[in-house]
Amino acid sequence: MSLVALLYGKDRPGLVAKVSQWILQHSGNIMHADQHCDLQAGVFFQRVVWDCQVERKSDTAQAFGVFAKNTLEMDIRVYDTDNPLKVAIMVSKTDHCFHDLALRFKSNELGGDLVSVISNHQHLEAVSSQYGLPYYFLPVNKKTKREAESKLAEHLRSHQVDLLVLARYMQILSADFLEDWGKPVINIHHSFLPAFVGGKPYHQAYQRGVKIIGATAHYVTEELDTGPIIQQDVTRINHRHPVNDLIRCGKDLEKIVLSQAVRWHLEHRILTYNNKTVVFE
Amino acid sequence: MSLVALLYGKDRPGLVAKVSQWILQHSGNIMHADQHCDLQAGVFFQRVVWDCQVERKSDTAQAFGVFAKNTLEMDIRVYDTDNPLKVAIMVSKTDHCFHDLALRFKSNELGGDLVSVISNHQHLEAVSSQYGLPYYFLPVNKKTKREAESKLAEHLRSHQVDLLVLARYMQILSADFLEDWGKPVINIHHSFLPAFVGGKPYHQAYQRGVKIIGATAHYVTEELDTGPIIQQDVTRINHRHPVNDLIRCGKDLEKIVLSQAVRWHLEHRILTYNNKTVVFE
Amino acid sequence: MSLVALLYGKDRPGLVAKVSQWILQHSGNIMHADQHCDLQAGVFFQRVVWDCQVERKSDTAQAFGVFAKNTLEMDIRVYDTDNPLKVAIMVSKTDHCFHDLALRFKSNELGGDLVSVISNHQHLEAVSSQYGLPYYFLPVNKKTKREAESKLAEHLRSHQVDLLVLARYMQILSADFLEDWGKPVINIHHSFLPAFVGGKPYHQAYQRGVKIIGATAHYVTEELDTGPIIQQDVTRINHRHPVNDLIRCGKDLEKIVLSQAVRWHLEHRILTYNNKTVVFE
Amino acid sequence: MSLVALLYGKDRPGLVAKVSQWILQHSGNIMHADQHCDLQAGVFFQRVVWDCQVERKSDTAQAFGVFAKNTLEMDIRVYDTDNPLKVAIMVSKTDHCFHDLALRFKSNELGGDLVSVISNHQHLEAVSSQYGLPYYFLPVNKKTKREAESKLAEHLRSHQVDLLVLARYMQILSADFLEDWGKPVINIHHSFLPAFVGGKPYHQAYQRGVKIIGATAHYVTEELDTGPIIQQDVTRINHRHPVNDLIRCGKDLEKIVLSQAVRWHLEHRILTYNNKTVVFE
Repeated sequence: MSLVALLYGKDRPGLVAKVSQWILQHSGNIMHADQHCDLQAGVFFQRVVWDCQVERKSDTAQAFGVFAKNTLEMDIRVYDTDNPLKVAIMVSKTDHCFHDLALRFKSNELGGDLVSVISNHQHLEAVSSQYGLPYYFLPVNKKTKREAESKLAEHLRSHQVDLLVLARYMQILSADFLEDWGKPVINIHHSFLPAFVGGKPYHQAYQRGVKIIGATAHYVTEELDTGPIIQQDVTRINHRHPVNDLIRCGKDLEKIVLSQAVRWHLEHRILTYNNKTVVFE
Repeated sequence: MSLVALLYGKDRPGLVAKVSQWILQHSGNIMHADQHCDLQAGVFFQRVVWDCQVERKSDTAQAFGVFAKNTLEMDIRVYDTDNPLKVAIMVSKTDHCFHDLALRFKSNELGGDLVSVISNHQHLEAVSSQYGLPYYFLPVNKKTKREAESKLAEHLRSHQVDLLVLARYMQILSADFLEDWGKPVINIHHSFLPAFVGGKPYHQAYQRGVKIIGATAHYVTEELDTGPIIQQDVTRINHRHPVNDLIRCGKDLEKIVLSQAVRWHLEHRILTYNNKTVVFE
Repeated sequence: MSLVALLYGKDRPGLVAKVSQWILQHSGNIMHADQHCDLQAGVFFQRVVWDCQVERKSDTAQAFGVFAKNTLEMDIRVYDTDNPLKVAIMVSKTDHCFHDLALRFKSNELGGDLVSVISNHQHLEAVSSQYGLPYYFLPVNKKTKREAESKLAEHLRSHQVDLLVLARYMQILSADFLEDWGKPVINIHHSFLPAFVGGKPYHQAYQRGVKIIGATAHYVTEELDTGPIIQQDVTRINHRHPVNDLIRCGKDLEKIVLSQAVRWHLEHRILTYNNKTVVFE
Repeated sequence: MSLVALLYGKDRPGLVAKVSQWILQHSGNIMHADQHCDLQAGVFFQRVVWDCQVERKSDTAQAFGVFAKNTLEMDIRVYDTDNPLKVAIMVSKTDHCFHDLALRFKSNELGGDLVSVISNHQHLEAVSSQYGLPYYFLPVNKKTKREAESKLAEHLRSHQVDLLVLARYMQILSADFLEDWGKPVINIHHSFLPAFVGGKPYHQAYQRGVKIIGATAHYVTEELDTGPIIQQDVTRINHRHPVNDLIRCGKDLEKIVLSQAVRWHLEHRILTYNNKTVVFE
């Protein structure tokens, strides 16, 4: 029903006026508009949502893209909320984020379509089928990694996947795959990044004796656990909590943080630049 | 250096475009613009901050006010950030919020001028003078209340006070005074409103056995503890905390919540309607 | 493998020494001991967990009960962790707490056995069977309430249920039923009690303009929403959130708060007195 | 009026019984007792508070120390709550933690005596005198560091200081000084450790694009920012916050976290082992 545009670029006077003017002149009715200016970097960011006549929506989207790019010299993406993004989830054996996302997609809490569950194990195949979700078993080991990733990219392309979500998937995706596929990947890391990068973060946190643990959802980049942070949350612990308690408490954090990040992405609320995110919540 | 406008009124297409267009045409450069639309109530809210030439600032402010009122049919207030608001604080004996605000004003953390400390006790007179703050001792009892409030209004008017802050002031201001003075009053209530209205809220909270306590900053209205809520915060407690611990923990909440509310007010970030606030944080 | 005792009563010198001495003399090894003294009320509370020989566990449990009651004059309950409590869940149509609890029981995160799902609707029957959970459809209306509650009590007794959990069950259980059944009932109320008692608490919260919403798990008593509070949690909202957003955000609160309360109960961590709880977390 | 014992050592059956028995036999009345067992490390920790006759307090303290050390083979410290610890604060120019601690000591919120303010600058001399606090100006540069630290140790010894608090003191204390003085030093680091060790942590946090910032109070050890963590707290930020906002928000975190850590230390609630803390809150 609506169009959503995410734009950003060099800040200049009059951008808000020009965007809103254009939409008004094209018979659009702005429902939401949120902008941000990074004064230090001199960069302007905007998310604008507007209603327009159904029959002209596709043309309007295209025309606005041309206007934003050519006239405003902005980076621009325009989405039609009637075409929800397609999502694939990758999982290993740990299943709490998987169940959480599956149930949220089922209850339409997330604005997208879950089209595929992909796993290097068969553990969640039966339950996926109960949820009515297609399951793609894709085993991987050191030897087969290149081949498996090539199959993965092919699978994602053939299903027209727009977003890949790593829901506690225990393998690292290679830089080659990320470049080859070229679309966004969201991961949940079970620590308050940048603390405790890498493996077994709850064990690291226990060892260090922190009083608060966290979880971080971020876009995946070449370098492990250093991509743009989308959302983080924390919970208080104390000396009485052994590692198992951190793992248990952390599960609830991970579910909430990952599902928020996925929701924001699917609602076109996130812009990334300088390895950081602007989230128009 | 900047002008800040707070406007609200019936939502209509093109409001954002019209406001930004007007500012652009009057050689203004929008620094921040934030808007909100209550779709249920059909009300549009906007805070817009823009730079304009110093010599034309006063004229621009007036002209924008006329434009917003007459052309857009909006409720409008325009502020010049070079003219900080004048603040008076009322205190009784409890002093944590008083010290907190005094120090924050001193370090220029709050965008206003603290011009008077008013109290029904003399306890904080000496320390006020150490802070370099004028102290107005205004005793009050049942018999003298009407007279004292009349003096209070006179004092506030003669000092051109724009905002009155009740920093754990233990007397209730009458509806007559509020109407007479006619300017905003912010109070800190030491509970998570609407729970525990009235006296001794920490004792009430202890009695009820809640697991979380809170503090609430709100605008004062005729009816006790029911005015528009500006900010709230909470902290976790447990069965080990006697009432005294609630009081101690609560002090930190009260300081933070009250100072945030005062800062937002002084930065012209708050609009009120339907006994609620829109805070453009 | 272990025994857990929960005791409370009039505080007197030497209670900790006497309890630990008794356990030591009966070849027990204390794993955890946590006590609390409400100095104001003069009441002593203790939770003590100890290992003892399997073949003597039943006798020890009984002997400790007699000791605590007769010698220490304490209220006492002793549990054997090898006999997990039996739990029944009541649901209506809203399913997020139901799924959450079902999955947590399935992954053994909660120390009890989920033996029955009871509902006044048939909506969750199919999915219950996917979880492998028996479903008891028990319709109820004004006319049949007395009869339905009588069936309910019978059902709970015949399944030897120890704890009844109202997971967003939309009917009010009568005082008669509570007395008849006589065992604990935990409810999740979707507000930060005592604020917003009764129906549609998120709508009430929206109306009042609070800046933080909450959820509360409590034991059910005769009077609606006023029983002993077990756990509460909150999340920050702002003017941008319509009621639907409060409902969505609240779901995560409700799941976490209810599951914590259930876990604590099943791990024998909760003592109630004076309509309050002591939670040995 | 009371004695407080902090003990820890190899876990063995009967420790709780033996400690409580000893106190009972020596006419003591246990007010609080809290214990913790690190099952992984096999270490037992206890904090026990008891009342005993004034005239026998000193003897009892000594006798209990001998008992705990020789009979229980525990590490033991016993404190008399009538002898509050003596505290010195080190500051540079940043003053929010200084004011906060000074006011809390003045209102008796912290169970110790503030006996000296030490600084490498003269900025806070006048205000210290307003608080009635002795000020020791101790300039330091690379060349004079060794000498300055030697004076510092002498000053602390001559004032019988028990605890040194670095309230945003901008110099690093050398390993030699720490060993020479030999008593605990608490520091506030303005990040959520172990993230953002070293200088300008808020700038580091801004650069990394985290969504939550924190503050950490820890005991100072040889290695920078890696000592045992006592307390941490966090606050949510977003893309709208420039570095200055992080600094402003962080101040409130730092004040609360540092004052909590100091209070716990002065109430003898903290045991350290394996570079971690057990805080009997």
